[in-house]
Amino acid sequence: MRYLMRISYDGTNYSGFQCQSNKTTIQGEIEKELGNIFKKHIPIVTSGRTDAGVSALSQICHFDIDDDIECNKVASYLNALLPRDIRILDIKKVDYDFHARYSSKKKTYEYYFYIGHDIIPFYEKFAVNVGYGVDIDKMKLACSGFVGLHDFSAFCASNTSVKDKNREIYEAYIDQLGDNLYKFVVTGNGFLYNMVRIIMGTLVDIGMGKKSVEDIGKILSSRDRKNSGKTMPSKGLVLKKVLY
Amino acid sequence: MRYLMRISYDGTNYSGFQCQSNKTTIQGEIEKELGNIFKKHIPIVTSGRTDAGVSALSQICHFDIDDDIECNKVASYLNALLPRDIRILDIKKVDYDFHARYSSKKKTYEYYFYIGHDIIPFYEKFAVNVGYGVDIDKMKLACSGFVGLHDFSAFCASNTSVKDKNREIYEAYIDQLGDNLYKFVVTGNGFLYNMVRIIMGTLVDIGMGKKSVEDIGKILSSRDRKNSGKTMPSKGLVLKKVLY
Repeated sequence: MRYLMRISYDGTNYSGFQCQSNKTTIQGEIEKELGNIFKKHIPIVTSGRTDAGVSALSQICHFDIDDDIECNKVASYLNALLPRDIRILDIKKVDYDFHARYSSKKKTYEYYFYIGHDIIPFYEKFAVNVGYGVDIDKMKLACSGFVGLHDFSAFCASNTSVKDKNREIYEAYIDQLGDNLYKFVVTGNGFLYNMVRIIMGTLVDIGMGKKSVEDIGKILSSRDRKNSGKTMPSKGLVLKKVLY
Repeated sequence: MRYLMRISYDGTNYSGFQCQSNKTTIQGEIEKELGNIFKKHIPIVTSGRTDAGVSALSQICHFDIDDDIECNKVASYLNALLPRDIRILDIKKVDYDFHARYSSKKKTYEYYFYIGHDIIPFYEKFAVNVGYGVDIDKMKLACSGFVGLHDFSAFCASNTSVKDKNREIYEAYIDQLGDNLYKFVVTGNGFLYNMVRIIMGTLVDIGMGKKSVEDIGKILSSRDRKNSGKTMPSKGLVLKKVLY
């Protein structure tokens, strides 16, 4: 039997999603407690790993198990065992042709940031200070420059093994959440390693006047990581949802 | 000379604003470092204390000192000495007729909350889960019931010594910030002890169908704390600004 599991986590205290020896990871914690419940190792497959410090409102995984399990009970057991910063939202039975990674059609990420002269401690709990004097209107305008099917080589960490760097962005915009508090929201068919954080760094450069809105097309066609902005901190990044 | 100081803090790790013996408070930390800089005790007067766990985007204080100080330098020194969750935004010289508390005309508070079946760890960093099945539209509609000049005795912690419980609310509304994430924003000429948190608890009761929008007027005129909702947790509460 295959089961789809919807999970939510605060990535602050984890070395990312994927298991790594001697590091505390989201996958490691969940597999440990699944193992405690079923007395065997049950690997989970995710829609895509998230980096150290990245959170998820709703991440999708699947796992296979011979037994016919009571989904609500297993979710409750897991939540009782797991730390509070990892929560199982629900578990449901799916067909074997469902695959958390390969069946995913769209993902939406959010990046929480604020514009501050100094740090704003309340915002620091969940958002990143992009500095003072940043022109938010230019950043808002620039978002549309990423929409469409593009080769995102210039917006991908250089140490990646992925060959096809074409990705389609369906929607990208910035919402104001409060005084100088914003989130960048981006939906695409998939994202390269560090892609959202590099797009975000490029938007900040545009807001600071270091790059122009028109530069986005040039940076994309250059396919060169050196031309895009810096990789913004993981803290503000949240996987909002995965669509199938 | 009198100086106005704008400060910002995350209240999570403090026993509120006001000094208390053997407890770590915002005022205590700031007065300690002002004392370290000027080699004497300099009491600070705030627009109003905030409770344990309550944060501020921009809180106002004043202090008096004989010396003519370099405001930017003192702010920098303080920021170097203070923990990162308390920040001095700026300091400026003001007339002696300015008083952080008595001169304040309006205050705006925000309360961050989300509607979740289980906790959402990323939202837990800064917002309070009000439970599942809460009708946000009813809550939005109910906000206007608090606007106007009212006797807020029913929305005040019972252990208060304040006699005049008339307060005027100028504006109250709920903004959506994300998937099931909201903030309640309220501006008034002043707030009684726990008033925003009790209003928020009453809004949640209305969202849960335990109380109706029409009940607000009855609760206000009853002047009885027993008729309003519970005091919501301090974590979601943030003093946004003080106007003079």
